[in-house]
Amino acid sequence: MNVILLGASGTLGKAIAHELQARHTIIRVGHSSGEFQVDITQPDSIRRLFEQTGPFDALVSATGKLHFGALSEMSAEHYAIGLQDKLMGQVNLVLIGREYANDGASFTLTSGILSDDPIRLGSSASMVNAAIDGFVRGAAIELPRGLRINSVSPTVVEESLPSYGPYFRGFKPVPAAIAALAYAKSVEGAQTGQVYRAY
Amino acid sequence: MNVILLGASGTLGKAIAHELQARHTIIRVGHSSGEFQVDITQPDSIRRLFEQTGPFDALVSATGKLHFGALSEMSAEHYAIGLQDKLMGQVNLVLIGREYANDGASFTLTSGILSDDPIRLGSSASMVNAAIDGFVRGAAIELPRGLRINSVSPTVVEESLPSYGPYFRGFKPVPAAIAALAYAKSVEGAQTGQVYRAY
Repeated sequence: MNVILLGASGTLGKAIAHELQARHTIIRVGHSSGEFQVDITQPDSIRRLFEQTGPFDALVSATGKLHFGALSEMSAEHYAIGLQDKLMGQVNLVLIGREYANDGASFTLTSGILSDDPIRLGSSASMVNAAIDGFVRGAAIELPRGLRINSVSPTVVEESLPSYGPYFRGFKPVPAAIAALAYAKSVEGAQTGQVYRAY
Repeated sequence: MNVILLGASGTLGKAIAHELQARHTIIRVGHSSGEFQVDITQPDSIRRLFEQTGPFDALVSATGKLHFGALSEMSAEHYAIGLQDKLMGQVNLVLIGREYANDGASFTLTSGILSDDPIRLGSSASMVNAAIDGFVRGAAIELPRGLRINSVSPTVVEESLPSYGPYFRGFKPVPAAIAALAYAKSVEGAQTGQVYRAY
């Protein structure tokens, strides 16, 4: 399969590429690295990406920003960051990408554990991750041509503990290679509308 | 308790008022009806509302718009309607309302069954309702002064079947009076971070 992988240079992205590359052609995409670049907050940039990559069999998104901050300091503008980037950025990959997707292609988005298991500073993550999972459930039943869509909801990955560990005390981390399996299940399996919890 | 009720003139709002009014003072708020008016997409309008109502013990929101449409015709702009209105409108009621909330006051937002149980034309509702529930879980653990926040996730209510029935074939409707009980549980109970499923 031709697999477009967004966020390919990240911790999770590298593990996903490692998991999939023996069996598939990986097209690595990043914000500033990779074979192709894209700014997922800009629909024009997304369209340019697909014009460059051409048709695909799977799109895997392991990217998306949101703002972490104390609820007491969060404003609508802080929530807008995650809504525009991690949520609508990934949704726009589907809305635009569907025009370039081969029959039976799959979309795999990334949400995260904080939708279910919140932490301090994480109210935007809880909102955005839940929204991604909700969108996936809703969109799955209306996609044509055998197109599929799932999300992977990872917990904190071991490799990120040096930076994120203090925010995730008590959370059982998983190695990125284990989280990457959930992406393979989505890409190479047959289900749709699923949230694969990697925790 | 002083209960500010948004969407007071709606099917659900009227049932909530009926359930709560024997025990509490209900301040009815609507977009164009009620004692006070507010446009929840406008932070300035929300702030004016609270300046008029003064401090409160409970805020119940049974309002919020989003766009229903076939996934094949949905664009980012269609999703933005629900993100700005039903999601961020209700979130802004919390972000601004917290300044006017008495110690121990509660916020009760409205999401909906489509987060879990999708229908055709409902991908925005699945996204937005899930986001509301996620925000509630995340915000609950950071609210100060004993403030609480929950959501009620209703299924289609019997009274709305004449207009919404065709979209909800096979869904077991509940009378609005039964859905209203979930709001009473949130307002008069002691839990926080809960999604009360009225289905």
